[in-house]
Order: sequence, then C-alpha cells, then structure tokens
Amino acid sequence: MRVAVVGASGYTGVELVRIVLRHPEFELAVVTSEQRAGEPLASFLPAFAGLTDLEFESAANAEQIGAQVGLVFTALPHATSAPVVKHFRDTGLPVVDLSADFRLRDLATYEEWYAPHPTPELIEGAVYGLPEVYRKELKDAKLVAAPGCYPTSVLLPLLPFLRAGVVEQGPIIVDAKSGTSGAGRKLADNLLHAEVSENCQSYSVGGKHRHIPEMEQEASIAAGGPMPILFTPYLLPTIRGIVTSIYLKPAAGLTTELAREILEQAYADEPFVRVLPEGKTPNLAAVRGSNFCDVTAVLDPRTGMLLLLSAIDNLVKGSGGQAVQGANIMLGLPETAGLLEAPLIP
Amino acid sequence: MRVAVVGASGYTGVELVRIVLRHPEFELAVVTSEQRAGEPLASFLPAFAGLTDLEFESAANAEQIGAQVGLVFTALPHATSAPVVKHFRDTGLPVVDLSADFRLRDLATYEEWYAPHPTPELIEGAVYGLPEVYRKELKDAKLVAAPGCYPTSVLLPLLPFLRAGVVEQGPIIVDAKSGTSGAGRKLADNLLHAEVSENCQSYSVGGKHRHIPEMEQEASIAAGGPMPILFTPYLLPTIRGIVTSIYLKPAAGLTTELAREILEQAYADEPFVRVLPEGKTPNLAAVRGSNFCDVTAVLDPRTGMLLLLSAIDNLVKGSGGQAVQGANIMLGLPETAGLLEAPLIP
Amino acid sequence: MRVAVVGASGYTGVELVRIVLRHPEFELAVVTSEQRAGEPLASFLPAFAGLTDLEFESAANAEQIGAQVGLVFTALPHATSAPVVKHFRDTGLPVVDLSADFRLRDLATYEEWYAPHPTPELIEGAVYGLPEVYRKELKDAKLVAAPGCYPTSVLLPLLPFLRAGVVEQGPIIVDAKSGTSGAGRKLADNLLHAEVSENCQSYSVGGKHRHIPEMEQEASIAAGGPMPILFTPYLLPTIRGIVTSIYLKPAAGLTTELAREILEQAYADEPFVRVLPEGKTPNLAAVRGSNFCDVTAVLDPRTGMLLLLSAIDNLVKGSGGQAVQGANIMLGLPETAGLLEAPLIP
Amino acid sequence: MRVAVVGASGYTGVELVRIVLRHPEFELAVVTSEQRAGEPLASFLPAFAGLTDLEFESAANAEQIGAQVGLVFTALPHATSAPVVKHFRDTGLPVVDLSADFRLRDLATYEEWYAPHPTPELIEGAVYGLPEVYRKELKDAKLVAAPGCYPTSVLLPLLPFLRAGVVEQGPIIVDAKSGTSGAGRKLADNLLHAEVSENCQSYSVGGKHRHIPEMEQEASIAAGGPMPILFTPYLLPTIRGIVTSIYLKPAAGLTTELAREILEQAYADEPFVRVLPEGKTPNLAAVRGSNFCDVTAVLDPRTGMLLLLSAIDNLVKGSGGQAVQGANIMLGLPETAGLLEAPLIP
Repeated sequence: MRVAVVGASGYTGVELVRIVLRHPEFELAVVTSEQRAGEPLASFLPAFAGLTDLEFESAANAEQIGAQVGLVFTALPHATSAPVVKHFRDTGLPVVDLSADFRLRDLATYEEWYAPHPTPELIEGAVYGLPEVYRKELKDAKLVAAPGCYPTSVLLPLLPFLRAGVVEQGPIIVDAKSGTSGAGRKLADNLLHAEVSENCQSYSVGGKHRHIPEMEQEASIAAGGPMPILFTPYLLPTIRGIVTSIYLKPAAGLTTELAREILEQAYADEPFVRVLPEGKTPNLAAVRGSNFCDVTAVLDPRTGMLLLLSAIDNLVKGSGGQAVQGANIMLGLPETAGLLEAPLIP
Repeated sequence: MRVAVVGASGYTGVELVRIVLRHPEFELAVVTSEQRAGEPLASFLPAFAGLTDLEFESAANAEQIGAQVGLVFTALPHATSAPVVKHFRDTGLPVVDLSADFRLRDLATYEEWYAPHPTPELIEGAVYGLPEVYRKELKDAKLVAAPGCYPTSVLLPLLPFLRAGVVEQGPIIVDAKSGTSGAGRKLADNLLHAEVSENCQSYSVGGKHRHIPEMEQEASIAAGGPMPILFTPYLLPTIRGIVTSIYLKPAAGLTTELAREILEQAYADEPFVRVLPEGKTPNLAAVRGSNFCDVTAVLDPRTGMLLLLSAIDNLVKGSGGQAVQGANIMLGLPETAGLLEAPLIP
Repeated sequence: MRVAVVGASGYTGVELVRIVLRHPEFELAVVTSEQRAGEPLASFLPAFAGLTDLEFESAANAEQIGAQVGLVFTALPHATSAPVVKHFRDTGLPVVDLSADFRLRDLATYEEWYAPHPTPELIEGAVYGLPEVYRKELKDAKLVAAPGCYPTSVLLPLLPFLRAGVVEQGPIIVDAKSGTSGAGRKLADNLLHAEVSENCQSYSVGGKHRHIPEMEQEASIAAGGPMPILFTPYLLPTIRGIVTSIYLKPAAGLTTELAREILEQAYADEPFVRVLPEGKTPNLAAVRGSNFCDVTAVLDPRTGMLLLLSAIDNLVKGSGGQAVQGANIMLGLPETAGLLEAPLIP
Repeated sequence: MRVAVVGASGYTGVELVRIVLRHPEFELAVVTSEQRAGEPLASFLPAFAGLTDLEFESAANAEQIGAQVGLVFTALPHATSAPVVKHFRDTGLPVVDLSADFRLRDLATYEEWYAPHPTPELIEGAVYGLPEVYRKELKDAKLVAAPGCYPTSVLLPLLPFLRAGVVEQGPIIVDAKSGTSGAGRKLADNLLHAEVSENCQSYSVGGKHRHIPEMEQEASIAAGGPMPILFTPYLLPTIRGIVTSIYLKPAAGLTTELAREILEQAYADEPFVRVLPEGKTPNLAAVRGSNFCDVTAVLDPRTGMLLLLSAIDNLVKGSGGQAVQGANIMLGLPETAGLLEAPLIP
C-alpha cells in the first residue's frame, strides 16, 4: 500500500513519516510541503538520510499524488486541511486527517472554536478515530478524523466510567501537562529553549483551549448527556508526552478496586491501552516513542473523589500513531502493524 | 547577628547558606554536617569557594555552637531535628526549624504521618512560619516551624478564599508539580537524570503525601471547619520550583473579577506575594531563585469552578527563603532583608 | 533465532531487549538479572508491558539457558562478564559481549586498565565488533566484543584518515560529550537530575578514561604505528547520545574537499555511517534512538588543523544496536535487520 | 549612582537589570527598549514585579536620559550600539558597552568580521573590559568594551600561559560549549525547546565564529606574536553557562604541578577567578548565576599536551557581571560590589 503524507515537514507529519517508514504494509510514496517543494526530505531533516530519497512535493498536485497512492494522511493546520481532504476524497481515496477539521460533529461548535468550515458536507461521513471506541465504524470509514492529543489522554481513562454510569453529575476536572512538541515547530518566544527549560506554566486556562469541545463531545456521548469539563493545560519542559490527571465525583460505593475493574474490563483486549498494576502511576518515559496509553484509577479516601491518571506520547498515540492505527483498521490490516515498537527507555 | 545552619550539606541547608551569605544583617558563623565534619564547606561544594572558609562542624557540639551564635536554622530530617532543636532552645537561642517536626499542632496527627515525636513539649510554643498569616505571632516567637514547600504553594492562593467564606463545602483538589530538588540529594533510582529528564510522573497519589495534614490543618483553621484536600503531586524535570493548580467550588456569584479582588486585598501589602495581572499565569521561571510566590485566580465559565494557580521556588519561598523571612520577623529586622534578589531569568 | 540477553536490567541490556523485540529474525527467549530473578521484566519496567511476558532468570542457569537459545548477548560489568561468556562459549553458542572484557587484544593492557582477566584464553578468538572495519572477521566469529560507546564515536570518523596516511605524527585530540545513560543506572550523587540538569562537566581528564586504550589500539592498527590520543569526556545534560570533536594535524595539502572525499569513499556502501552534506554538523537529535553514526570533516583555514565531528546514540550504535549489527553479520542475516528504525525526532 | 541600561529587554540587558537592582551603590534609573517604549518592565517580565516600577523608554531620548544618570550600560546589537554609545560619550557620561563594537582594536578586523564601523573614532579610547588583564587601564577609562562570553572563558585560563612563555608556537585548540541564552531571545528554529533539549551540536565550525578575532587579539598580545586559534563552539541544552576545553603544546618540562602554579600565581588575588583544587573540574552548576570563572590545568601524560578547562555563567562573568565589574573599577567603587552573590545550587 503506497502512502502519501501531506504536510510532512511539521512535527506531526514527520512522526507519520517515521512510522510509515517502518510499517510492514506501507510504502512511503509521497511527502508534501508547500514551502519546501523540490527539497529532499533528508536535506531538510538529515535524520532521515539513508532511509528515504523522497523529495517534498506540492499538495497542489493532488490529482497526480492521488494517482500514485492508496492512502493519504493529511497533517495540515485546521481549515487548511479540509479542502485538501476533499480533493483526495473526491478521487475516492481513503484519508486520515490529523487536523481538527473533522473531529467535531456539530458544525456550529467547530465554527465557534475554529473558523468557518471549508467543507461542512464532509463532516457527517467522518469517523472519530479513537479505535477503542469507534473500531466498528472505522472498518467502514473513508475519512478518519484522528483525535487531538489532549482528548486522547483524557477520553481513554475517562470514558469507561461515563459509560458505566458511575459518574455523578458535576464537572470533570482535567489537569494535563504536555511537552513542547505539542505546539509544533512554531517560532514563538515562549517556546524557546531558554524560556521553557526549567520552567512549567499553565496556558489557555479558564475554558479557552480548543480541545475542550472535542472532549466534551465524546464525554457527553458516553455519559448520555451534557458533561462539562474544566480543562487546565500546562507546558512541560519535555519534548514529547502528555500526562493527565482527571478528578471526578463518583457514585457512592465506588472503590479503587472497583474502579480498576472498570478499566481492566474496558481494556482487557486492547493492544495499546495498558492498565497499570496498583501502586504504579503513568509516566512519560514508559510510553516515549510508543503507541501505548497507560492508565490507572485511584479513589481518594480523604475526599471520596476518583482520580484517573494517564500518559501518552503526544506524537504517537496522541497523533501519528493513532492515525496509523485508524488507517490499519480502515484498510483491514492488522491493527498493530507498524505500531508495536517498544518505548525508548531511558 | 551570627548565625548557625545545622544540617548544611543538604539542598535546604545549602540554600540557607546561600541566603545567609548575602543577608546584610547575618554573618554565617557555623555550618554543621555529621558526615562531613572537619571538611571545608567549599571543598564539598566548590561553588562556595571564595565566599566562605567555614568548615563543617558536628551538631553534637550544640553548647559550643550555641555560644557562638544568636540564631540557629535547623535543616535536618524529621524526628532527627526535634532533639537538636530542643538542645538549642534549652540554651535560650531562637531557632527556625525547617523539618516537619513543629508544623503540625496535633501530636497524634504528627505521629500518624511521621514518627513518634521526640520532643512533644515544644510543639505548643512553635509558630507556623507563614508570615502572611502568622506575622504577629512570629514577632514573639522563639521557635519557628518553617512551612513545607507544597503547603506554601497551596495555602497562599487558597487561604484568602477560605477566610472570605466563598468556598462551599466540598473537597479542595490540588494538582501540584515540583522540581527534583524537593526530594533532596537522595540516591534513588527515580531521581537519576536519565529517569527524570523528559519525564513527568505523579507519586504518593490517593492521599498518601505527608504534606496533606499540614495543608488541611491551616485550611481548616482558615475555613473554620474541616476542609479535606485531595492532593496529587508530580515530579517535574526541573531542578527547582513548584507550580500548583487548585480547584474548588465557590459560592454562587463569584466571578474572576471578585476572585482577583480577594487576592489583591489579601496581598496588597505583602512584599513576596504577587497577584499576577489578568491573563498571565504563574510559572517557575518568574520566581526562580527568588522568594516570591506568584498567584492568580480564574473562574471557569463552563463549570463554575474556581481555579487558583501559584508558583514558588521550592528552595526559597518553599524553604530557606521563607525560613529567613520568619527569622527576620522574629528578630525585629526588616522582613525583606536578604530576600529581595531578583529571579534568575532566563 | 531464539536469543538470550544476559544482564537485561541495566540500560544496555534494556536497549538490547528493545531492539531484539522488533528484530524480524530474533525471538527474545531469555532475559537474566541476578537481583531480579523471578520478577517479570514488565513488572520492573512497565514500559515493556504488552510486549513481553518474560521473567528474569538467573544467569547461573547457563546450561539451561544455553539449551533454549541460539545466540547470547552478555551485558554485564567487566570482569563479571568474561566467566559467563566462557560458560556459553563452552556450550558452543555464539556470544556478543558488550563488556570491555574482549575489546583489548593485549592482556597486559586490559589488566592495567581494568582488572585481572578471568578468561584470557578467550581473548585471541574474539573479534572487535566494529562492522565497518571487521566485517569479514565478524562473518566467522563466535565471540564478538561490541565496541565501547566513545571509541565508536571516535574511530568511525578517524580511521579513514589514519588508513589514508594523511595524519602527521603527533597526538590526536578528542573532546567528547556524552549523555547520562552512558554511566548506566548507577546511584551516584553526580548523576542525580538536580546535579546534571543545566550542568556540563568534564571528568576522567588527563588520560584516565578506560576507553583510551581501546581507541589507541584501533587507531594504531589503522595508522600502522603508535597513535597516542588525548581524550577529554564531558557529561551532557541529555539522556542519550555522544557528540565528538577530533582535532589532528593533517599532511600538507589536505583540504575540506579532500577530507570529505576520504570519508565518502570510506562509507559509500555503509548503511549506518552517514557523511553529512557540507555545512551540516552532526547532532544528537538526528541519531536519537537509531543505529546511525553521522560524521563530517572540516579543515580549519586559520590553523591548518583537521576537525572531525561525529554523533551517535550511545545506547544504539554505541552499544546495543552495534551488538545486534555484529550478531546479524556473524549469523549471516541481513546486516540491517532490526536496525533501520528512523531516529525519534523531535 | 543612578544608572541607565540601554537595550534592557534582551537577555543581556535583563541580566544587567538583575545585577544593578541588587548593587549597593547603583540605582536603576532608566531602562530602554525601542519596541517596548512605554511598557512597564514588570509587565513585559513579570519576574521583576515588586522590584521595579520603571517603564521602558526610547534610547532616542539620549540627552534626557543622560541628564538623569551617571553611568550608562549599552546592551544593543553590534553596529547599532556604536552610535548610541557615541551619543552618551558626547555628553561626557562613562559608558560600558556590551556589544562587539569596541572590543577589536583593529578597525579592518572589525569590518571584516562584523560591519562598517559607525564610530571608528571611539575605538582607540575604549578599554577591553577584562579586569584581570586591564584593571589599571579600566581605572582611567570612560568607555569600557565588555568582553564576549566565549573570549572570557578562553582568555582567563589561557593568558597566564602565554604570558609565561610556556606555549610553543602552534595553534591553540578551543572546544567550547554554551547554553542557549548565549544566542539571545532570538526566534530561530534551532533554538526551540523541542530542537535543543536532549540535543547538542557544533556550529560555525572551521573558523567562522565572530569571537575568534577577539580571542586571537588578546592571545597574540599576551604571547607577543600571532597566536592562531581553532575554535569549535557547541550549543548545549542548558539555559546558562559556558564550559571550555583548551588544548595546547607546552614547552618541554611543564607538569601539571607547574601549570597549576602558573594559574595560582596569576589569580591569587583575583576575587572572581577560582583555580580549582587538583582533581576537580569546572562545571556550570558551580558558577550558575555568579560572576566566578573556575579554571584548572592538567598535563596529559600520554601526549604531553596541556589541557586547560574553564566554566563561567555566560550572562554574568561572560556579560552583565563583568560589565558591572568593569564599571565598579572605572568608578572607583569596590570591585566586587553587587557581584558576590553565591551561585544558585542546585
């Protein structure tokens, strides 16, 4: 299966390239970048020397690109992505989109948080690419909306409890910490090494982060009703990884043991969600470079609140890896193909 | 005023040395370390070469040490500290203790969380060294219990709201992140650079951290009744600093504006607590190496919950700096003496 | 091919496990650790959960282990390794040893720098596992001595110039910088995060580092005569990677262009040594997690000296990856099997 | 003494602000920034809240500024600085300039490496602000050219050997490593946290770095003849600090002991240069935030080469601190005023 990565010069695109290169069923056939069209990928990123001779093309040649491949990953900014996706979908190609353009089912919500939607007609057919929830739908999908990184780190530990009906009404509090690759290769003062190293700071506090409607959408579906989320993201002085705390008020009678059973039952057969043994907590090192999401649950005896914890690599399970997992399912390949690489430890 | 730092080889003791050396009214006269007695401080820590010729002594010579100084800082492990404190107090010397031994007013609580108390008779006379709350009591103190680092980062943003009566009953949720110096110079696998760098992990989750009773003690006093706290600490890949999120359910009608007013009124005259301008969030870099505590408050419009944020340098406002601040007050010196150094930026 | 990793709990052993798990021709059959015998690998290192169910065994069961596998990697401390290697060799099994025990051809040199050699009789038959130099010998080897990390980073850029005869007599100066994983998971003050982060320090200066005789051995062979090396290692605040500067006085007439030709000719057909385009310099990020060694050469116009630069991941090309590369050659497998994973960027 | 910091928003200017604020004889009276004129310093950098209420002014008001202060520090880019310096000098004010504009005595050299010089007439009267060499000249100076960061780290360990005549002709090799604050708050891809963290890379190799002529100028003066320097700088994943190796061929008979004596004699009375005890090597942590330069010397027994090592904080002894040291001397103040702060450890 020949594959195109559209928008291959950003951190998300580069991670897709890394995974596609080792995927046993995929062949990296096309990489695009508007600013770097004509430049060899390995010239821009010498890390890829010896692994690929591909040159960046322009995504404007969608027809020509489409003719060469059987699958397209689009890793472009929101609102930029949708028209490109449409172009490839119009040729009948299956697409996995890593932007925010097809994650929200409600057009008005998308337009409130992002921008006017360039191709609203594609929203309904898109499948939210969280395999642990939408595996069945992904099998028949033609357009997969790969989930956001924060939502992945929140939804995997949270949804089993919402579905089990053990969450009392009341807000869900999420305190999440992300490495700097989550911001992309963006030239901003606050992303300079001298500003980030030895630092840690919250941002977009007070309900301003664009991943909130995505989390609330899926949490509300699972809960069977509106489920507001208070979300506080922090920038960590790490390159990769998201580690998340979730606080919620459980139904009476829930214990740590019962909470762990809920997680274990939900993920017993899942290849990439690991329920940690009691006493262990998720951490970035244990998932670095891998497609795993580590989760656990602890009932706080002093307050009766339930604490859920998770860790992912934001560029793998939070982005490129989960996109490939979705593609594997959509194409009928083994779901773990190309994704069982062990974490890089230390 | 000649000063002794007892337990001067650990990170807390070293920070006291650093601050005492620049203090305009203090002269560092004695440093102790049981393992390094006889060794020059600057031989153990070449960073101090050119600044002091002192050699470590043994704290066992308490009488001899007491005769040379007018003030003692004790920076020893809990339960080890209390008998040493007693020795110096018996000679009439004022003492600032940086261990946990005199922070908890209730003996049973201390013994439940720590160990049998070696000198319970000293507890009643000790003053909890949070100047923003106990300034008056510190003026007459002879034994100051310097607060823990996490409690400092929690209590300064939180107490004004408890005292104002705007917190509805219900648990307070604290998600705090600390640099590795908070663990001391301890030889443990999980503190090795290769394990900590690029990592972030929660620990002592589910109500197990020893700073919980200290926070609850002061929160309950301020609230006028029991105030349970859910506390989740994280180890950050930074050397210094604690950045903290606090979530609580406010009384109806509280807005971001009103919340900020509560903070501003509480800290208008405080030299070391800075209420950040709206839109700014606390971060470690802005307090690195300094005695400041930065705080802010935001009401989350989606959930109605109140979010409080703070940042301190755990070794300064969270330890050695606050200890010196307490000593300044106790001795009738200007409270800011030796403590107005600007943060190290970047 | 079933494989044993003896000494699988240290950083080197863990890296071997990581690579063997993804190797298309290898099956990880045995992992040993004396302190952790009986404990599942994934219990000690949750990062491996979902990837292997193996438990650590004791290497004392060498006979039993030998019966289950066709290849043994030994990742034990020097002098501890040799007797274990002998045990496996006596059963006829091929062994790749990652300790220093079989790297030095001269027994006296080994014993001067390390310790009395437990099995000197095995030295002669061992092949130094630098495939770019000893590929032919590796094909017939039964015992491969995987090179040290620093020597790999030095020899790959240096040897082509020594062999080409363009190095005038006179010392070779090496200034190398290594991440902290190079020291292993060793509990030492100077490896704590709070000591290493934001720091950088040379160590073992003035001809004291044990990798010197290994570098000099191979440099002298290539030069056809004694080639003394001045070696200054630095500890970097990174987890992985070695980046190295080499300074030497070239024969008259050497230019940057000619120097680059020497490198390009030497490595034209090598899968893992990449000669960077002019103007680019080696860096850790471009090789992180991969088996590549990036090299370049620049003639300094002000001084006429030749500067060689290299970068490797110390745990891959500097250890576990190169060991697997040697094993592939020894076993007649494709040399790149399991080793073409792209670097983890960013 | 009221003081102006012209160009106070860059890292160098901010460091000057930090030091001037604690200086017992200085009062920070003016800070300038062209882009931020009118904005409070503490609004741009909340780290300074509670320490100063100053607003940035425009340096265009040189006359007005000059009327308010007795000393000016200029921390502007090269070629931008010279005309501003001239303006203040024309009013008779003493100036310490932290740009490269007055470091090189030879106009042609300056113009070859930098740009056309805007005020060549000021070069002759400027004094190179390395107090350990030019203390006498600084006493009568009106314009001090604060040395570059790399040159400071090289010249302090090197010059005593050149002056002692124990360096044989032949190049001096310098391999230096600097934290990212050395590049300033510059928006460049290669300074993003995700690119720098866990990385280390040389740059401007092969005689291209602008600090070379500055080092060669002072080395040649000390040696009494041309002294070419091969200079290789590395970018370290730290915020602050430069750690440097210098390699040179000494005269016959030099030993480690004699080399150390040369350093000790040169720096016996210097408050900021510390010759480390034998067996210790300079490191960034021991000088972090301080004005110290740590140095040592080791003769390599295998090669007969002399190794010199140094460490400084690039923003203090390598920039703002040394500038204040020069100002203290020029103004007849105690040389160490405001500069004896202990390093921030850990």
